[in-house]
Amino acid sequence: MNSTAYDLVVIGSGPAGQKAAIAASKLGKKVAVIDRKEMVGGVCLHTGTIPSKTLREAIMYLSGFREKSFYGKDYTVNREITVADLAFRVQKVMAKEMEVVRAQLARNHVTTVHGRGRFTDPHTVEVDTAEGPVVLTGEHVLIACGTRPAHNATVPLDGERIIDSDQLLEGKTLPRDLIVVGAGVIGLEYASMVTALNIKVTVIEARPTILDFVDTEMIEALMFFMRQRGATFRLGEKVVSVGYDEKKRVVANLESGKVIHGDTLLYTTGRQTNADLLNLAAAGLSADERGRIAVNEHFQTSVPHIYAAGDVIGFPALASTSMEQGRLASCHMFGTYCESRPESIPYGVYTIPEISMVGKTEQELTKAKVPYEIGLARFEETAKGQMLGVEAGLLKLLFDPKTRKLLGVHIFGERATEIVHIGQAVLAFGGTIEYFRDSVFNYPTMAEAYKVAGLDGLNRL
Amino acid sequence: MNSTAYDLVVIGSGPAGQKAAIAASKLGKKVAVIDRKEMVGGVCLHTGTIPSKTLREAIMYLSGFREKSFYGKDYTVNREITVADLAFRVQKVMAKEMEVVRAQLARNHVTTVHGRGRFTDPHTVEVDTAEGPVVLTGEHVLIACGTRPAHNATVPLDGERIIDSDQLLEGKTLPRDLIVVGAGVIGLEYASMVTALNIKVTVIEARPTILDFVDTEMIEALMFFMRQRGATFRLGEKVVSVGYDEKKRVVANLESGKVIHGDTLLYTTGRQTNADLLNLAAAGLSADERGRIAVNEHFQTSVPHIYAAGDVIGFPALASTSMEQGRLASCHMFGTYCESRPESIPYGVYTIPEISMVGKTEQELTKAKVPYEIGLARFEETAKGQMLGVEAGLLKLLFDPKTRKLLGVHIFGERATEIVHIGQAVLAFGGTIEYFRDSVFNYPTMAEAYKVAGLDGLNRL
Repeated sequence: MNSTAYDLVVIGSGPAGQKAAIAASKLGKKVAVIDRKEMVGGVCLHTGTIPSKTLREAIMYLSGFREKSFYGKDYTVNREITVADLAFRVQKVMAKEMEVVRAQLARNHVTTVHGRGRFTDPHTVEVDTAEGPVVLTGEHVLIACGTRPAHNATVPLDGERIIDSDQLLEGKTLPRDLIVVGAGVIGLEYASMVTALNIKVTVIEARPTILDFVDTEMIEALMFFMRQRGATFRLGEKVVSVGYDEKKRVVANLESGKVIHGDTLLYTTGRQTNADLLNLAAAGLSADERGRIAVNEHFQTSVPHIYAAGDVIGFPALASTSMEQGRLASCHMFGTYCESRPESIPYGVYTIPEISMVGKTEQELTKAKVPYEIGLARFEETAKGQMLGVEAGLLKLLFDPKTRKLLGVHIFGERATEIVHIGQAVLAFGGTIEYFRDSVFNYPTMAEAYKVAGLDGLNRL
Repeated sequence: MNSTAYDLVVIGSGPAGQKAAIAASKLGKKVAVIDRKEMVGGVCLHTGTIPSKTLREAIMYLSGFREKSFYGKDYTVNREITVADLAFRVQKVMAKEMEVVRAQLARNHVTTVHGRGRFTDPHTVEVDTAEGPVVLTGEHVLIACGTRPAHNATVPLDGERIIDSDQLLEGKTLPRDLIVVGAGVIGLEYASMVTALNIKVTVIEARPTILDFVDTEMIEALMFFMRQRGATFRLGEKVVSVGYDEKKRVVANLESGKVIHGDTLLYTTGRQTNADLLNLAAAGLSADERGRIAVNEHFQTSVPHIYAAGDVIGFPALASTSMEQGRLASCHMFGTYCESRPESIPYGVYTIPEISMVGKTEQELTKAKVPYEIGLARFEETAKGQMLGVEAGLLKLLFDPKTRKLLGVHIFGERATEIVHIGQAVLAFGGTIEYFRDSVFNYPTMAEAYKVAGLDGLNRL
């Protein structure tokens, strides 16, 4: 069989794969990206970030979520919100994004090979295209194969009312109430969306705490807010079996003896990678029990010319960080120096309301015995917050009380994922919280909360 | 008559007066703020920023503006949007903001005196309170008396269908079409709101160009977008008379001979200050033909212990900059050093879509013979832009092609006034556009447009 030689073969066309391919191509390298035709853009585009965040915008709007504080709790735009209403918008955005990804790869002269790829040796990947097998050899290979929902015999998914997140938008009606098993990012994002639709939700999580990388105060605010909208949290509770009762309701039996009934159960406990489909052994690689591949700080695997990036290497598994990992992997493999700013990477959790952060958390600073002071702003006290009808929101600055240097920014509420980048820039340049006092902010904006928090922090000294 | 002595007497409780009073009070000074009871918070709160920006949010929502790209041009939330719908939200926010201002002044031990103040000598202000005249003496005085719409005999306002911006929300029905005379910030904000409601608007402006402090490309984008929604611009055209025709339609006759018919005419050509009510002569001060008071870079008038800040000193007359002026005036009068960042003050124009900017414009750089390169991002190409259904948006970075230092940021589109603060921070710290390439941005966000623009800029080198 003929084979084509590339400087870089990328397995997977999600955010990590795309950015690695484009970065290498900009360095003049010959690059191929392998993915199934219907999966160009990866999980991010098809079942992950893009559909879930579009769904979130559709729900925010169609539920009249932001307007309830003006027009009352029972206000909605459409009396009956159907899955079709929600899916319509999602389909439109997905189609457009797929175009964008294809155009970007083509514009950068990246070859796209459609099919599933698997290693036959450390430099060779065979792809089962529609036209038959194709062999690619790469001086370098990047594994960016992504993940799929992890399954578990305890929770027998049926695609009907016991489902995983991939199956959520396939339903024809919205559940009357929902059990969410797993309070990771995905579980909480969907659970909070559902509460915005006034659908009761029970969140079950085996660990006693949730999203441990996020500042505790923000998590508590989220839980408080979700409870106000009808959510119940069962933390530190293990699901031992799931099935249907005689009334055809879903039943989750917990180890503690509790029995949770619901219309539908969404299982979001963890993801497993697609590395098991790659024949890693032929490349001299292996993966852990969840299929994760270990890499060093340059995203190199134990086989130096093979890199891995994105969800396949584990936390944080966000589209934004995966893009960066892809870019850095390409820079490293081709010996180009790439500036990066690992200490000021923001994290965004698209719950309702959203959470975003950059820098250190209170927990981390306390553990490291770094003294800090805080500066706090409440969104409902800002003019923009009132105009938008936000009911809750917090912006917390953590700073060194001696030097006043900014150490961390934690935001819970409307536009958190946007405005966190303001704090990120100040952090990246080593700025102090006096920056927020001394700078003019557009009025009215949510960004103004930085000024309020900065002044609050300085007042505490 | 007894008089009470203060370290600082502030005339006017708008943004400039509030922040000056609070800053002085934090320095341990005895401060009084004078304003009519029903006007606490100033024009900003009663007829300016707060009601107009709340109205804007209400229109954005009730018109389904952001959703039209998903559900079609004729989509609206309420078939019939009434002035009552719009006014309801405005009233609610105004009441809440008035509380906030009152509480803030009280918490900072600022005395509030209700009534109109006028100078009797350079240190003395007499106030006609409901309980009779009250005399205040101030070691320092800050004039922050604000403005009112300027009137003109050519345009005989009747409060019915020939109105100024203060009268806009008093109407009972929305106009079928609107003539806006004056394309300043206020005129354009209202004109663009009205186009969002699918009401035809004709904007007439005597000058040949509009908003000259804003980057030309952003203005052209705004005009293009407003035209698409039915706006007509008549620039360089002077209104010579306004009246009603035999069919009771409003008629504006232009110097060029054109006759513009409309349901309602909104006159927004300029503002005049309230300084004429202060008996400035007794303080040894005077004002220009529009009532503006001249100040130096410390906001000092020609009488050194009297300062002026806010709209009364003219451009830019934004709530955000007025707050900063008030704070800086207080710092200067009490001899405290105050850091400020005049080179990185953002400007926000709350048109639909909004415009925001920080740093230099292309016009300014060209005039100063500073070479620059640009980096551009289009909002509709970002994932978040698609999710939100934005139809247009631009983010333009201006930077030095040699040092790559950021020189200016210009944004037209959804959330422009929020995300401009990211560029502002980079500008304030002297950063380069490489910052945007090397930083991770949450995905999906509008903020991500910085990364796209940064990469575009670097590609042009």
